[in-house]
Amino acid sequence: MRTLKLTLAYDGTNYVGWQRQLNGMSVQQLMEEALAPFAGGEPPTVVGAGRTDAGVHALGQVATVNLETDVPALGIQRALNVRLPDDIRVIGAVDAPPGFHARHHAKAKTYRYRMVTTPVLSPFDRWFVWHAPEPRDAGVMRVAATALVGRHDFASFQARGAAIRDTVRTIHRLELTIQGGEVVFDVEADGFLRHMVRAILGTLADFGAGLRPAD
Amino acid sequence: MRTLKLTLAYDGTNYVGWQRQLNGMSVQQLMEEALAPFAGGEPPTVVGAGRTDAGVHALGQVATVNLETDVPALGIQRALNVRLPDDIRVIGAVDAPPGFHARHHAKAKTYRYRMVTTPVLSPFDRWFVWHAPEPRDAGVMRVAATALVGRHDFASFQARGAAIRDTVRTIHRLELTIQGGEVVFDVEADGFLRHMVRAILGTLADFGAGLRPAD
Repeated sequence: MRTLKLTLAYDGTNYVGWQRQLNGMSVQQLMEEALAPFAGGEPPTVVGAGRTDAGVHALGQVATVNLETDVPALGIQRALNVRLPDDIRVIGAVDAPPGFHARHHAKAKTYRYRMVTTPVLSPFDRWFVWHAPEPRDAGVMRVAATALVGRHDFASFQARGAAIRDTVRTIHRLELTIQGGEVVFDVEADGFLRHMVRAILGTLADFGAGLRPAD
Repeated sequence: MRTLKLTLAYDGTNYVGWQRQLNGMSVQQLMEEALAPFAGGEPPTVVGAGRTDAGVHALGQVATVNLETDVPALGIQRALNVRLPDDIRVIGAVDAPPGFHARHHAKAKTYRYRMVTTPVLSPFDRWFVWHAPEPRDAGVMRVAATALVGRHDFASFQARGAAIRDTVRTIHRLELTIQGGEVVFDVEADGFLRHMVRAILGTLADFGAGLRPAD
């Protein structure tokens, strides 16, 4: 049995997220269906390093799948890119050590969140940024961000009704970069709860707008 | 009567082009309908500097409209951005000298055409570039491009069946820039025939791939 490491880029606009769900099409489902011909016709399980939420995009999602085929990795990559819709692309495919697991062996994951504060949003950014045209104090947001770095219980930053028991995560890095009328948040952690990045950024943005006391 | 100069950015993916047509929605039609409340309820004529083709995007299309309203330009801009879909944005609005005409008074128009030659196309580029993953000789394309600069009859580079009589245009500049796996063509001219930019770039790409003799 071979273990294949796939690196994916996708535009998440049209999907319910990475994970298979009954209420809509997921990136995982399309990947598994596209891999079926290499797994005797049955869609194999594809594990993603991170379960991206609905509407979240990927520049380099890593996924693993175990296959018995003799087709070289490059041939599998090409076949997948023919079968998949053009908003999901396999940008890399290599054989990994047997047993390599995209989620268990991930050292860290990085989310980038873009917030545009100018009055008019570019039509080309409309699926890719949060348009929040209120003035924000970046200094206040930076100070609040530092309090979140490290190992904490992020239970209050997860989606309502989530059933995950262990809500402790370690944020290695939470950086704000100002580029023109755009605030770019880069968050690196060992893992993220559902909606956690969005909830953190919303909270920081409230601090920046003076809607919550920063202490 | 006031003359308003509007600068527009739009994602042309969902439109038949700038110009009003019976077979689908155009940017011009949406602009005129959005301006109707400032023109006594009847959609006024909006003139664009260039009639962009279907699927062509704009970073700075200039348009003019004559109105009798007292609403300041900034107020009109804000109202338009509320009424228009978010793939069309008014990024500038100022009062122009009476009689200013976006097309007649345009000094030049610049088209940018992006061609990606890498095997895998980023999902985020899929509506914005021409994916042509064959090797191309940029030197040959540059030489062929220089032959097109200047005043020429471009009749053979227009859409089939076009009824325009004067097919002489002046190309001021036709530059190729290589950026990684992407060839960026910038074409500046006094005007363009229908499909002219696309036809020129397709021809240059054929030269680059050795499909036509460059002489």
